[in-house]
Amino acid sequence: MRSSKESLVEKEKSREDLGFGTKATSEQARLVNPDGQFNVRKLNQSFEAKSNIYHRLIRMHWLKFGILIILFYLFVNLIFGAIYYAIGVEKLHGISQEDGLSDFWEAFFFSSQTLTTVGYGKISPAGYLTSSVAAAEAMFGLIIFSIMTGLLYGRFSRPNPKLMFSSSAIISPYLDINGLMFRIANEKHNQLMNVKVNFIFSRNETNEQGTVRRYYSLDTERSTVLFLPTAWTVVHPITKESILYGETAESLKKCDGEFIVSIEAINDTMTDPVHVRKSYLYSELNWGAKFKTMLKPVNSEYVLDLSKINEVDDMELNVY
Amino acid sequence: MRSSKESLVEKEKSREDLGFGTKATSEQARLVNPDGQFNVRKLNQSFEAKSNIYHRLIRMHWLKFGILIILFYLFVNLIFGAIYYAIGVEKLHGISQEDGLSDFWEAFFFSSQTLTTVGYGKISPAGYLTSSVAAAEAMFGLIIFSIMTGLLYGRFSRPNPKLMFSSSAIISPYLDINGLMFRIANEKHNQLMNVKVNFIFSRNETNEQGTVRRYYSLDTERSTVLFLPTAWTVVHPITKESILYGETAESLKKCDGEFIVSIEAINDTMTDPVHVRKSYLYSELNWGAKFKTMLKPVNSEYVLDLSKINEVDDMELNVY
Amino acid sequence: MRSSKESLVEKEKSREDLGFGTKATSEQARLVNPDGQFNVRKLNQSFEAKSNIYHRLIRMHWLKFGILIILFYLFVNLIFGAIYYAIGVEKLHGISQEDGLSDFWEAFFFSSQTLTTVGYGKISPAGYLTSSVAAAEAMFGLIIFSIMTGLLYGRFSRPNPKLMFSSSAIISPYLDINGLMFRIANEKHNQLMNVKVNFIFSRNETNEQGTVRRYYSLDTERSTVLFLPTAWTVVHPITKESILYGETAESLKKCDGEFIVSIEAINDTMTDPVHVRKSYLYSELNWGAKFKTMLKPVNSEYVLDLSKINEVDDMELNVY
Amino acid sequence: MRSSKESLVEKEKSREDLGFGTKATSEQARLVNPDGQFNVRKLNQSFEAKSNIYHRLIRMHWLKFGILIILFYLFVNLIFGAIYYAIGVEKLHGISQEDGLSDFWEAFFFSSQTLTTVGYGKISPAGYLTSSVAAAEAMFGLIIFSIMTGLLYGRFSRPNPKLMFSSSAIISPYLDINGLMFRIANEKHNQLMNVKVNFIFSRNETNEQGTVRRYYSLDTERSTVLFLPTAWTVVHPITKESILYGETAESLKKCDGEFIVSIEAINDTMTDPVHVRKSYLYSELNWGAKFKTMLKPVNSEYVLDLSKINEVDDMELNVY
Repeated sequence: MRSSKESLVEKEKSREDLGFGTKATSEQARLVNPDGQFNVRKLNQSFEAKSNIYHRLIRMHWLKFGILIILFYLFVNLIFGAIYYAIGVEKLHGISQEDGLSDFWEAFFFSSQTLTTVGYGKISPAGYLTSSVAAAEAMFGLIIFSIMTGLLYGRFSRPNPKLMFSSSAIISPYLDINGLMFRIANEKHNQLMNVKVNFIFSRNETNEQGTVRRYYSLDTERSTVLFLPTAWTVVHPITKESILYGETAESLKKCDGEFIVSIEAINDTMTDPVHVRKSYLYSELNWGAKFKTMLKPVNSEYVLDLSKINEVDDMELNVY
Repeated sequence: MRSSKESLVEKEKSREDLGFGTKATSEQARLVNPDGQFNVRKLNQSFEAKSNIYHRLIRMHWLKFGILIILFYLFVNLIFGAIYYAIGVEKLHGISQEDGLSDFWEAFFFSSQTLTTVGYGKISPAGYLTSSVAAAEAMFGLIIFSIMTGLLYGRFSRPNPKLMFSSSAIISPYLDINGLMFRIANEKHNQLMNVKVNFIFSRNETNEQGTVRRYYSLDTERSTVLFLPTAWTVVHPITKESILYGETAESLKKCDGEFIVSIEAINDTMTDPVHVRKSYLYSELNWGAKFKTMLKPVNSEYVLDLSKINEVDDMELNVY
Repeated sequence: MRSSKESLVEKEKSREDLGFGTKATSEQARLVNPDGQFNVRKLNQSFEAKSNIYHRLIRMHWLKFGILIILFYLFVNLIFGAIYYAIGVEKLHGISQEDGLSDFWEAFFFSSQTLTTVGYGKISPAGYLTSSVAAAEAMFGLIIFSIMTGLLYGRFSRPNPKLMFSSSAIISPYLDINGLMFRIANEKHNQLMNVKVNFIFSRNETNEQGTVRRYYSLDTERSTVLFLPTAWTVVHPITKESILYGETAESLKKCDGEFIVSIEAINDTMTDPVHVRKSYLYSELNWGAKFKTMLKPVNSEYVLDLSKINEVDDMELNVY
Repeated sequence: MRSSKESLVEKEKSREDLGFGTKATSEQARLVNPDGQFNVRKLNQSFEAKSNIYHRLIRMHWLKFGILIILFYLFVNLIFGAIYYAIGVEKLHGISQEDGLSDFWEAFFFSSQTLTTVGYGKISPAGYLTSSVAAAEAMFGLIIFSIMTGLLYGRFSRPNPKLMFSSSAIISPYLDINGLMFRIANEKHNQLMNVKVNFIFSRNETNEQGTVRRYYSLDTERSTVLFLPTAWTVVHPITKESILYGETAESLKKCDGEFIVSIEAINDTMTDPVHVRKSYLYSELNWGAKFKTMLKPVNSEYVLDLSKINEVDDMELNVY
């Protein structure tokens, strides 16, 4: 009535796993968000892991990053300005000593001149305490700008591929059968090389133990291309052996089907690896369509029109 | 009475080797420490290899690193301050020349203003010797802060995975047999990709030539997962073919059994490789347990509770 | 009259694809330019992808990069100088206040002293507004030079292989058949390791559906060499099984034949990967030639004469 | 009388190639120098490839690098000092204007204060020309120190493995046959992972066309170890199938035999790849010896004595 130990083990080994276990999903909880991030929130991370300052500062939007730097600069100068003010402005040579507020601002500007090491010298520190604070601030300033250098280099040199995906996957006639297709193109001038695709289908399945989530690797016409100079239409041929054979828009909705794409490649500017993820939910499938061509030769060069990546013609599917 | 040459060679070739040779171990000397470092001390390293300054400064705890920088800054300024003082404070324009101690501190602060290149100019060098020392110190300062920039970038950009391991490995019922399992999860927000596991079992074996240490690769249900968005329970199915079949807590203690785990993956923030090691001694095995789930869907997302990584339920093992 | 579904899929799968699709080319539009760049122009890129500032600044010629820096430095000082001038030169302590033009230039030089943080202090800011602008400029200057540090490091550390290719590929007698050969050498002192070659032939083919572009992988005598200390002649043996068997200079011209070479290797200075592309058009083939040797032992070392990379002797081809 | 085309091609394909072609060597010209560098000099490199400034500055000895920096600093200040002096010291405010030599040195020190951006302000530029030169020098200084930062980071972060090789390879009894062995150990504290060895034997062979150099891959007991925590003795078992079977010290000398070792591994501090080469000439073989153990357990840890890497005991070889 049941198979032998070894065959159960073998069956389990042959299963695909995306790291989500076999808990069934509901329509609301897709595995991978449209931006390629996994739809997972972590509880009880350590403070260090949660804050992860470097990671955040590297990935933050440029505008946010710029504002943060300015605020930090103001904050540090306010703190040090207040310290100099608290010690006494008479310990700052060259300060005008008019009234409290104006003295504070002169201390603030002295702080900025120390932090950036511009040190005009119009105002200079006197006394052990103020001199010590100024010596500490100048070193602190240099460390801050050392860190800034690292952060800016990290931000610039971080692999930042601009890989465009067609917003929908399409079911399209392919040779004398049909195929599941999506299209990618590199928006940037750099070349992507050794481009490798992983295409995974995930659905709920109901068996005697209840509903579980299963994962299937979809084989593609090509799993690797040497270069991606133009656009690449990735095709899973829906042969009779395909797990998708016989599926319909309704059946995929019912099993909460999701298609997860993972692309690996090498960026040839710095020859660093890039990895991009994308997910198509059953509702992001276009049944019966064909991609329009994006590439045409113009005079002595090829022209790739990126704006056409989502353009399709309606097509009748093959029946087989 | 003995096998042919070739077969002895083939047999030797098929053996696993972790790089510790075949010396038998004692209970006190585990191969890999709980923190993943190999339990090896090296004698007679060259000075350069032993000191390995960059390696240490990169891996040092942040607090220790910060204190070191401050002490170094004080030390350098004391040295240069002493040099200026020895040359004569009359060669420092603008110094008050009150008494010896106060003069020394003014030389010290002048040094700090030169090293950081803040150079207020309230005090400035005069004479060839003092001017030369100041010129050297300013250059030295810039080089120091160049090195600091590199060190800080190295520290920040160093792969620093926060991979959590369950503190014990468990022997757990698995399908209709039993399995040796441990669990890993990525504590950080970044994604780990192409996660690959190597699972090695090491034990003392006694044959006619005496007691030797042998190493066996344990095959796992999956040796690679494409992503690690949640937690991954690595399973070695204890089939009848497994080297662990029939072993007990007592037999593993007797042969000084140790399980060594090596994880390789790609971190997707900078797409750099990460490698993590972990070792479970026979005494860190939990016989007859099952991991509680860490993941549950909440509304439209998955929630992974990292604090549950060590939580198990007691379970009766399968007999076969 | 036609093959089964599966076999059509299999046939399609076995085809090489370089990412240009199957559009036939014309003689004017080669796929890969002589410098190894793909002959593709992209339309409708996003502004960010199109500008791609970091990528451009990293790849720009050193001379252009230097001029850009100087212009930027002048521009920033003109802007800040104008701001100080607009606020009023009486807010710059120590300025001579002679006439308008001379005042402007003093403001300009004050700006340069602030931006570089040299801050002599002969001129120093007074008043809230001028002090604030100076505080902002000093910080801006440090950020600019932080970015500069990253750019310069990026430029220096960017893989910049100097791989020489013979300017023509040759058809040469090879053993008792003929071979298609080209030659590569590393012009630099560093070593290239694990050198791997991909050799692709592309041509127009006319079938019942019209003229399409097809791609064929050409197998080579060796696809990998462990090192490239001298020169490597890559050979595609034109056996009777080769797609090139029976082709002539005329037939290759007629089908617009192009040979695309892609080299991967590891540079051992920083152990970073390098990738180089090269294309030989049918018109860059030399029929009936043999490369002269570039290497000869001189005393106790080998001498490689790079200037001989294109030198050939005429040779009669084998007939078979 | 001769084989078919295809089999000649196949035979050629199966040959190992180290990139030196088939020119026979003489005893004086070993392929790989004892330090692992190939024994090749390149003629007619382009100036850019030949100078290769970044590569040299990165690999240069620390002492040489330090002296170069100091000389460069002196040189730049002499040049700029001379420019200021030529323009006229009256354009340097605060200069004492005593005599020519002392004025020149004050200009020199002013230059150093500008280049390092310390800018005390005791001396400050006046007039358009001097102010412009100072503005240019301050920017130049920042660029120099930006480049310095990159160089220092490049020097520190460059993979710099300290892999020790036994100075001789030994022919040693191995099981019931003999083996060719050498030994490697990592002198540093960091771990090497995925250590892979390539072992190549090269010799002159005389056939009907004359004497040619041939290369043979030697298979090893293990070609990869997961870690290198201690020492690894790499063994080529000299089975009857081995190319070395029957060779003697005399026969290897006659054919100018050379053994080339290439090691690849991953360094776990920065998880960067390392590659190391080593060559053993026939004269660096020790016939009939056995490596003494370097590793012994002491209390609860393993102790590896690196000074023993070359220690051997004499051993009689097996006859078979």
